[in-house]
Amino acid sequence: MRDIDYGRLFSEDTFSFFRSPVRDIFKRVDLNAIHSFAGGYPSAETFPLEVFKSTMAAVIDKYGGKAFQYGATQGVTELREVLSARYGVPVERVQITSSSQQGIDVCTRILADPGDVVLTSDPSYLGALQSFRSYRADVVGVPHEDSPEHFRQVYRSAIEDCLERGKKIKFLYMIPDFQNPSGETLSLDERKILVELAREYGFLIVEDSPYRELRYSGTPVPTIYSLDPDIVLHLGSFSKIFAPGFRLGWIFGNPEVLDKIYVCKQSLDLCPPVFDQYVAAEFMGSGDLDRNLAKSIDLYRGKRDLMLSLLDEYMPEGISWTHPEGGLFLFLTMPEGFDSVAFYDTALDNGVAYVAGSFFHTDGGGRNTMRLNFSFMTPERIKEGIILLASLLKKALA
Amino acid sequence: MRDIDYGRLFSEDTFSFFRSPVRDIFKRVDLNAIHSFAGGYPSAETFPLEVFKSTMAAVIDKYGGKAFQYGATQGVTELREVLSARYGVPVERVQITSSSQQGIDVCTRILADPGDVVLTSDPSYLGALQSFRSYRADVVGVPHEDSPEHFRQVYRSAIEDCLERGKKIKFLYMIPDFQNPSGETLSLDERKILVELAREYGFLIVEDSPYRELRYSGTPVPTIYSLDPDIVLHLGSFSKIFAPGFRLGWIFGNPEVLDKIYVCKQSLDLCPPVFDQYVAAEFMGSGDLDRNLAKSIDLYRGKRDLMLSLLDEYMPEGISWTHPEGGLFLFLTMPEGFDSVAFYDTALDNGVAYVAGSFFHTDGGGRNTMRLNFSFMTPERIKEGIILLASLLKKALA
Repeated sequence: MRDIDYGRLFSEDTFSFFRSPVRDIFKRVDLNAIHSFAGGYPSAETFPLEVFKSTMAAVIDKYGGKAFQYGATQGVTELREVLSARYGVPVERVQITSSSQQGIDVCTRILADPGDVVLTSDPSYLGALQSFRSYRADVVGVPHEDSPEHFRQVYRSAIEDCLERGKKIKFLYMIPDFQNPSGETLSLDERKILVELAREYGFLIVEDSPYRELRYSGTPVPTIYSLDPDIVLHLGSFSKIFAPGFRLGWIFGNPEVLDKIYVCKQSLDLCPPVFDQYVAAEFMGSGDLDRNLAKSIDLYRGKRDLMLSLLDEYMPEGISWTHPEGGLFLFLTMPEGFDSVAFYDTALDNGVAYVAGSFFHTDGGGRNTMRLNFSFMTPERIKEGIILLASLLKKALA
Repeated sequence: MRDIDYGRLFSEDTFSFFRSPVRDIFKRVDLNAIHSFAGGYPSAETFPLEVFKSTMAAVIDKYGGKAFQYGATQGVTELREVLSARYGVPVERVQITSSSQQGIDVCTRILADPGDVVLTSDPSYLGALQSFRSYRADVVGVPHEDSPEHFRQVYRSAIEDCLERGKKIKFLYMIPDFQNPSGETLSLDERKILVELAREYGFLIVEDSPYRELRYSGTPVPTIYSLDPDIVLHLGSFSKIFAPGFRLGWIFGNPEVLDKIYVCKQSLDLCPPVFDQYVAAEFMGSGDLDRNLAKSIDLYRGKRDLMLSLLDEYMPEGISWTHPEGGLFLFLTMPEGFDSVAFYDTALDNGVAYVAGSFFHTDGGGRNTMRLNFSFMTPERIKEGIILLASLLKKALA
C-alpha cells in the first residue's frame, strides 16, 4: 500500500502554525517535580473543592436534564445574566466562549485575512501570537514607551508604517491589566490614546482581560471597553477567578460584531459546555466566587511580595524586573548579550523552569528577558526556586 | 462620534458564513411547548442524574485540584486510555476534541483552502456544511445510489468532474452509520469503495460517527477507519452516549495528521474541558456508560418502532420514508412539487416542527423532503405529533 503524502493535503494556514514552547515544556517535565515558574497556572489551593461539589449537586437538582442537554450558541441565559449584572454590560452584548483563548481565536477568524495587520504590544501573549499567525496575519509588535507622548508616537508611527506598506489594520490586541508576560498595566491616558487611534484609523481593539480581577495593590484603571464599547471587543476569562479546568470565557462587544462570532461559533463547536456554564452561574450568583476571589487575592499578594523580596535579596547586579500590581507574572531583564533561550537547558537540568522572553516577542527580540510566574508554587518552592535561579544566573553572568 | 463600518473590517470567510436554520428554530420556539421533530436532541430521560452527581463527587475526591487545572492539549491521559481500550485504537492515535463539531471544523481548517473540494453525500449534516462553507471550500454533494456499482460510478464521476475543473479534492465527509439526516447506513461494500477511491485519487476520508453505538436492529458494519486507519480521520462524540451538555468528542487518525490538529488546537482553545473529561473517563471506565447506553437503546428502539408504525397508519398516499436501524432520525419524501420549506410555517403554527430537507442538500435540492427526529419527545407527544403532521400533510397534498 502506497504511503500517503499528507503534506500535499494540508491547508496553507497549517504552514504558519507554530507550537507553543510553553505547552511543550509541560510535555517535557513534570511540573510538580521541579521549581516551575513557567506556566500561567493558578494555584490549586484556590479551587474550593467542597464548594464545587455542592454547587454541582445544586445545579443538578435545580436544572435537571437541561444542564446536560445542548445549549444556546450565545451561552446559557443564566450565565449571561450574572455577567451582565456583575460588569454592567447589557445582556445582548454578552457572548460566552469555550475559553478566552477561543475568544482571541474567533475574533481573529472573523477579522483577519492573510496579510492583514494585527497590532500588539511587544512582548505579548504567546497564545495570541499563535492564533494571529495561524491565520497568516501580519503581526506588528509595538514596544512599550513610558510617557503617554512617546506611547502615542510609537503607535502612530507603527500604524503609519503599515499604511505606507499598503496594509489593512484590522485590530489592536492588548492586555491592559497585569500584562502577560510583563505584568505591567496601562495607564488611563494610554488607554485613551489607543481608543483615539482606533477611532482615527478605523480599526478595532481586542482587550484581553484575564487577570483584571487579580489586583493586589494600587487602584483599578477603567477598562478600554468602558471608554468606547463599540470599538472594543472585551475578552474575559473564568480561568483565573473560577478554574481553568472549566473552559469558559466571554466576549463583550457591539451586537453586529457579536452576530458574526455567533454564526462562526455554530460551526466551531455549536455551544459552550452547558453544565460548566450552569456551575459558573451558580458559583458567581451565590457570592461564592467573590468570597473565593478575596482569598486568592490574599494568597497571590503574599506570593508576589515574597518573590519581589527574594529577587531583591538574591539576584546579582545588572538584573532588573517589573513590579506588577496584580496578575500572575513578573518579567526579568538580564544584561544585553545574555541569552535566556540558551540558558534554559542549564536551568532545567538544575530543576528550575521559566519561559524565555523572546517567545513573547513578535520579532525574536528580548533574548535577555524571562517570564516568571508566582501564582503556581508554594512559598517554600518559590523561595528555593529563586535562590537556585539566582545562583545559576550569578554563575552564567560571571 | 462616527459610526463604525464593521463590514469593511470583516474577513473574507465571514461572507461565506451561513446560520443554521435548525439553531434558529430553537431561538424562535420553546421546544417543550410544541411537538418538535426538529432537533437532534437525546431524550433527557437518558441522563442518569444521580449517577452523574456521584461520578462528579468521585472525580473530585480522586483527582482533587488536578481536575480543575489546565490540561494537556491532546486531552487527559485517563480519557484517551479508556477510548483506546474501548475501540482498540493506539492511544497516540487519539485526540480529544471540545465536541465532535470541533472535530469537523478543525479537520476542515487543517485541510481545506478556499476553492478546494470537500466531497460529501447529498443530503449531509448541516453543521458540517456550515463549517466547510465557512472556509470557502467548494462543497460537492453526491446523491446516494443503492447498488455498489452505481455508488462507485456516481462518486468516480463526481471526482473526475472536480479534477477536470482543475480542483484539488482534500477530503470526503461521510456519516456512514444512521446518517444525519437520512438515517441510512452504508454497506461494507460501499465503505470499501470509498477507501479505494480515496487511495486511488489521494484524498482523506472524514468519517463522522456520532450515532454508531445507537443501533436498534441489524448487524454492525465495520467502521471505514478500521478498513484503512491512515486514510481516515474518525470522529466520535460523547453527545449521544453520555450527554451533549459536556462538549466532548474525539478524533482517531494518523499521528502526522493529529499533530497538525494538536498544534491548531493549542491556539483554538488550549485544551478540552478538563473536569468534564475526567467525568467522562470515570463514567466510561466504571461501566456506567454501557449500562446507561443499553437503556437508551431500548428507549430509542421503542420510539423508532412507534414512529414507523404511526407513519404506516396515518401518512397519506405518496409519502415514503427511510427505515433506520439506529440513530435519531428518519427522512420523509413527499411527492415531487411539494415544498417543505413553504409548508414549515403551517406546521409550526399548528404546533409541530421538523427540519426541511433542502437545508441538508448542497444544491438546495430535496425541497420535497423533511427530517424527523424520534429521540427527543415522549411516546405520547410522538403520537400526537405524527397524527397532527399527517393530517396537515393530507390537507396540503389534497
